[in-house]
Amino acid sequence: MDMADKRFSSKSISLLDRQYRANLINSVTGFKSLCLIATISPNGISNVTPFSQVFHLGADPPLIGLVSRPLDVVRHTLENILATRHFTLNHVHETFLEKAHQAAAKWEISEFTACGLTEEFTSHPAPYVKESFIKMGLKFRERIDIPLNRTVLIVGEIVELILPKKIIGKDGYADIEKAGTLTVSGLDCYHKTDKIVRYSHPSTNEKPSAV
Amino acid sequence: MDMADKRFSSKSISLLDRQYRANLINSVTGFKSLCLIATISPNGISNVTPFSQVFHLGADPPLIGLVSRPLDVVRHTLENILATRHFTLNHVHETFLEKAHQAAAKWEISEFTACGLTEEFTSHPAPYVKESFIKMGLKFRERIDIPLNRTVLIVGEIVELILPKKIIGKDGYADIEKAGTLTVSGLDCYHKTDKIVRYSHPSTNEKPSAV
Repeated sequence: MDMADKRFSSKSISLLDRQYRANLINSVTGFKSLCLIATISPNGISNVTPFSQVFHLGADPPLIGLVSRPLDVVRHTLENILATRHFTLNHVHETFLEKAHQAAAKWEISEFTACGLTEEFTSHPAPYVKESFIKMGLKFRERIDIPLNRTVLIVGEIVELILPKKIIGKDGYADIEKAGTLTVSGLDCYHKTDKIVRYSHPSTNEKPSAV
Repeated sequence: MDMADKRFSSKSISLLDRQYRANLINSVTGFKSLCLIATISPNGISNVTPFSQVFHLGADPPLIGLVSRPLDVVRHTLENILATRHFTLNHVHETFLEKAHQAAAKWEISEFTACGLTEEFTSHPAPYVKESFIKMGLKFRERIDIPLNRTVLIVGEIVELILPKKIIGKDGYADIEKAGTLTVSGLDCYHKTDKIVRYSHPSTNEKPSAV
């Protein structure tokens, strides 16, 4: 492939068309995790929407962070999290990718009903997506406002984790590729993965080996 | 595949062996972006290390967030960012994956020299990794401490962006799979991607179509 470069400066990025810039910047930050985030309102109306701005924040306690804009499409999700203090994250697989994508549209009714996804409840207060093989129940821990661009960072703690026994290795690594978990690039491009290698702990004495 | 579930509660997660928990929790948060983060110390010693805790924070201005522990292996990176206010993020491809992984070991000299990666400078103060096709030069914007688990969130603004012309679509979407960008699961498992579909904007009126 011709790898001749295009270079953007701060100035040229700021002058881009709004949607072009959103597509470009969302792509170059790399592959992202893809989850359906599900909540329930204080009135009992469930809500589910695809979400790619989730990141690992720590394992002990098990914390994740998610980024939301106060006024974007996940506003109901954010309102429900702040009101009920609970939500779930559910991995997305190819079998229900189309439904997951469509859940991002502005529905007047629950996206579970509108898109044909199935609610599932445990003792956790928020609904899970039954179709998903890897599910996390989370409790709200902290809200951090980022005034620089008016985004809101929500910190959640994993209080329930449900996944197939068969994908959990002896050392705790969960083979999410084997479970069919997808990844997303940009705003709307979905990918399967193809494992290259899992490497041993990096050392200054020898080259990494496959584990 | 046998998809019989294993369920973990808060309690059972807290009782796991430390390394087992780190592997498990890092896996279930989904696929992550994989970059080499490069900095230079005030004394001119360059530093480069693989990093998977980078996330998109906004496109206007173009902001990314990264999560670090004050005391973890990327401490030099964090110190250099705070001292020089600049760093770069460089996508990782299969051709130099082994070198990128090994850059995480505790080297006494610059990881560029130790691992056989090539420094490249533009007018941006921090070094780029020449072998990478997609490179971002960033300026430090904000530090947010997260007392819950003593992590530090660094917010950076993309002030220079360099990528192959050929992968940029008409609407700004950059085809990072075509550039060979990799993704990571858990702490140390690397994957290529295989595009399924890029969907049209979700609508309540019709099913999504491929774009």
